[in-house]
Amino acid sequence: MDSNVKKWSAEFIGTFWLTFGGCGSAVLAAAFPQLGIGFHGVALAFGLTVLTGAYALGPISGGHFNPAVSLGLVVGGRFKASELPGYVIAQVLGAIAAGAVLYAVATGKPGAELGGFATNGYGAHSPGGYGLVSALVIEVVLTAIFLIVILGATARRAASGFAGLAIGLCLTLIHLISIPVTNTSVNPARSTGVAVFGPEIAMGQLWVFWVAPLLGAAIGALIYRSLLSNGQED
Amino acid sequence: MDSNVKKWSAEFIGTFWLTFGGCGSAVLAAAFPQLGIGFHGVALAFGLTVLTGAYALGPISGGHFNPAVSLGLVVGGRFKASELPGYVIAQVLGAIAAGAVLYAVATGKPGAELGGFATNGYGAHSPGGYGLVSALVIEVVLTAIFLIVILGATARRAASGFAGLAIGLCLTLIHLISIPVTNTSVNPARSTGVAVFGPEIAMGQLWVFWVAPLLGAAIGALIYRSLLSNGQED
Amino acid sequence: MDSNVKKWSAEFIGTFWLTFGGCGSAVLAAAFPQLGIGFHGVALAFGLTVLTGAYALGPISGGHFNPAVSLGLVVGGRFKASELPGYVIAQVLGAIAAGAVLYAVATGKPGAELGGFATNGYGAHSPGGYGLVSALVIEVVLTAIFLIVILGATARRAASGFAGLAIGLCLTLIHLISIPVTNTSVNPARSTGVAVFGPEIAMGQLWVFWVAPLLGAAIGALIYRSLLSNGQED
Amino acid sequence: MDSNVKKWSAEFIGTFWLTFGGCGSAVLAAAFPQLGIGFHGVALAFGLTVLTGAYALGPISGGHFNPAVSLGLVVGGRFKASELPGYVIAQVLGAIAAGAVLYAVATGKPGAELGGFATNGYGAHSPGGYGLVSALVIEVVLTAIFLIVILGATARRAASGFAGLAIGLCLTLIHLISIPVTNTSVNPARSTGVAVFGPEIAMGQLWVFWVAPLLGAAIGALIYRSLLSNGQED
Repeated sequence: MDSNVKKWSAEFIGTFWLTFGGCGSAVLAAAFPQLGIGFHGVALAFGLTVLTGAYALGPISGGHFNPAVSLGLVVGGRFKASELPGYVIAQVLGAIAAGAVLYAVATGKPGAELGGFATNGYGAHSPGGYGLVSALVIEVVLTAIFLIVILGATARRAASGFAGLAIGLCLTLIHLISIPVTNTSVNPARSTGVAVFGPEIAMGQLWVFWVAPLLGAAIGALIYRSLLSNGQED
Repeated sequence: MDSNVKKWSAEFIGTFWLTFGGCGSAVLAAAFPQLGIGFHGVALAFGLTVLTGAYALGPISGGHFNPAVSLGLVVGGRFKASELPGYVIAQVLGAIAAGAVLYAVATGKPGAELGGFATNGYGAHSPGGYGLVSALVIEVVLTAIFLIVILGATARRAASGFAGLAIGLCLTLIHLISIPVTNTSVNPARSTGVAVFGPEIAMGQLWVFWVAPLLGAAIGALIYRSLLSNGQED
Repeated sequence: MDSNVKKWSAEFIGTFWLTFGGCGSAVLAAAFPQLGIGFHGVALAFGLTVLTGAYALGPISGGHFNPAVSLGLVVGGRFKASELPGYVIAQVLGAIAAGAVLYAVATGKPGAELGGFATNGYGAHSPGGYGLVSALVIEVVLTAIFLIVILGATARRAASGFAGLAIGLCLTLIHLISIPVTNTSVNPARSTGVAVFGPEIAMGQLWVFWVAPLLGAAIGALIYRSLLSNGQED
Repeated sequence: MDSNVKKWSAEFIGTFWLTFGGCGSAVLAAAFPQLGIGFHGVALAFGLTVLTGAYALGPISGGHFNPAVSLGLVVGGRFKASELPGYVIAQVLGAIAAGAVLYAVATGKPGAELGGFATNGYGAHSPGGYGLVSALVIEVVLTAIFLIVILGATARRAASGFAGLAIGLCLTLIHLISIPVTNTSVNPARSTGVAVFGPEIAMGQLWVFWVAPLLGAAIGALIYRSLLSNGQED
């Protein structure tokens, strides 16, 4: 198997898993009467998609599963810009495939109601009614720190093997903070994958969940590179 | 002790633990008034049975605890087909033993009601009322990804020692997504172990929770083998 | 510092932490209106006391923090019988000290009500009303598997470093299953430490939470030794 | 980049993350109607800020993120007293920056109410109404054990790489126990960072959350050093 096809397959499958697992837990299980998993369970689910994907597929593709992560790794000097387009396309296609399968499962019962279908939003489409400024600030800040954690935990001097754990649980933490604000993106592919099948307002607001995570990722990578990195050692 | 007996004992005990721990948390603790652990706690319990079993018994038998996993490992080229029958028999017997002990504990109070006894189902027997198609799709998809995670996390190039963590938490994630749909199987032994002691409808639907996980496991192993594996290196 | 004093200090502190952390979360936080952590949070707390204690103090004393574990390790051939009395005394004293400090904290507010003070029980003193047989069965079974996990995860062939994680999370799992039945002991020291300050019924039933965990630990160690161990290699 | 600036940057960012993540989850997500994460989710969030920060930034600055930890490490003989002022200033500034950003996000919706803004307190400002004595006792005891876990898990004889996991989850455990008492500090910087933007009572009680954690940290380090450490080997 060609090495690029293998990497793209891993990114497709990993982003499928991130979107299907994270958004699936939100759509199917979060608000189940009395026994539902709530935001806490959804936060754990998103993190575990990355944790499991990182240990299983990380050795193949690096385990990005997120265009903002791929961009941040380019800015941080850990990933070639020429590989970016292939990765981003694979990620977005994987996320859309996840949205489609989730749609099929979720509508497979009498009287199914999809609600927001786990899409991201602000203002009227924010779970807690937070406005655009709050949405932009929190998505930029959280994606920036996400990249700092990714770059730091995968640096050569970091404890070997623990990166998948730290990065996955960082995504859980990000969701524990910000689901009420934007339903948490920090990942344009995940946002796109469900927006395609979600309510109209989600597509109209989707630009925010491309712009803010990509901007945040670049900022985080620059902070890491200028303040924290160890020169060639990384 | 004969090496086969040792392996079968480990699979018996591990599948006992998976079924007793996961289904036990569901039957005894999920719906406890006000303080109950809900689907989130049950999801964690299932995952931790595999995490703990993998670290304790994995070095002995490989730590499958699930006929679908054993089959997928055969398809993935990691386990001998000739060992399959012994493993599956040990797994099913361990799960049935767990169902029996759980039944004894759960009925040991005045006015005990067992409800679904943590059995799997679709349609009228699905926690959220999801139909057969949703049940088949989700069980196949989740078992397929489960096998991809297992094969990837135990590949030679993967971070050594972390497989038990990744695989156990993958089962937690699978439950966070799908308890509302089928009460989550991805494991024919676990489904059988409680169906024997559960409501009649569970036995009538049990075929689904053999067919779908076994099919999903084979598909996942084929995807890993054809798209992601590294040839002889695995 | 004399090597025995160092070990006893580590067991005293570790069992203090197990009892203060686990029972403290139950007494102070489990039933807090609306935001309380429930049985799920208590289960996590107990497990994390052992996880943190094992990584911090395990290199000093082995990190037992539990008379049943110490006994099981003797039966399993991993710990000298002559060291048992010193360990058990240190553990019980640590647990009682924890009960005392927790009592002081919990009564430090107007109108404080201690309720069961996280004591263990059956029948009228079981959280879910389970009888003596259910209590005995579940405490014996869970302590037996706890010892199998401990012996397996600390065997020489096991993944190095992961034992503290597996054993701590095993205690979380045990609580996810059995808090409704006995409020979960599997540890005579923890049961004693709060029974001393709890309601009268707890002292009357305390014998169960010495007999069942010790018996279960011995059974688990015998199962491991006869069926699963690797002879001298362990 | 000058080595001190790099360390201070890492402590600033890490303490920003601890305060923004932990307090952010409390302010934004804890009490969300029906789906909120409760004390359990907040406890997990605080722990994961340290876990992720430790793996990402620990190799740079040691990953203290807390003046009490820095002081305890001085007392424990693991950190130079001359480095203390720079670290503490960076930590407090990072926490205040986090408070400011959180304030901006949280007020970005119509009719926002900040409530206690995740500040710490006792008496009328304790979540559960606990008095000053309970507050002092629990903050001292928990910070002391936190330092024992930190010193033990980072000792040379400890399992390599697992310190970030153990220390982060120790902070989760500390919160599972004590949010009802003081809203949990064990970290003067975190307390200060939100007190500046919180209700007036928080500033008046802030001294407690400097005195008790610092005292507890010193006690914990002395206990470790006198009872548990291995002499030069640490």
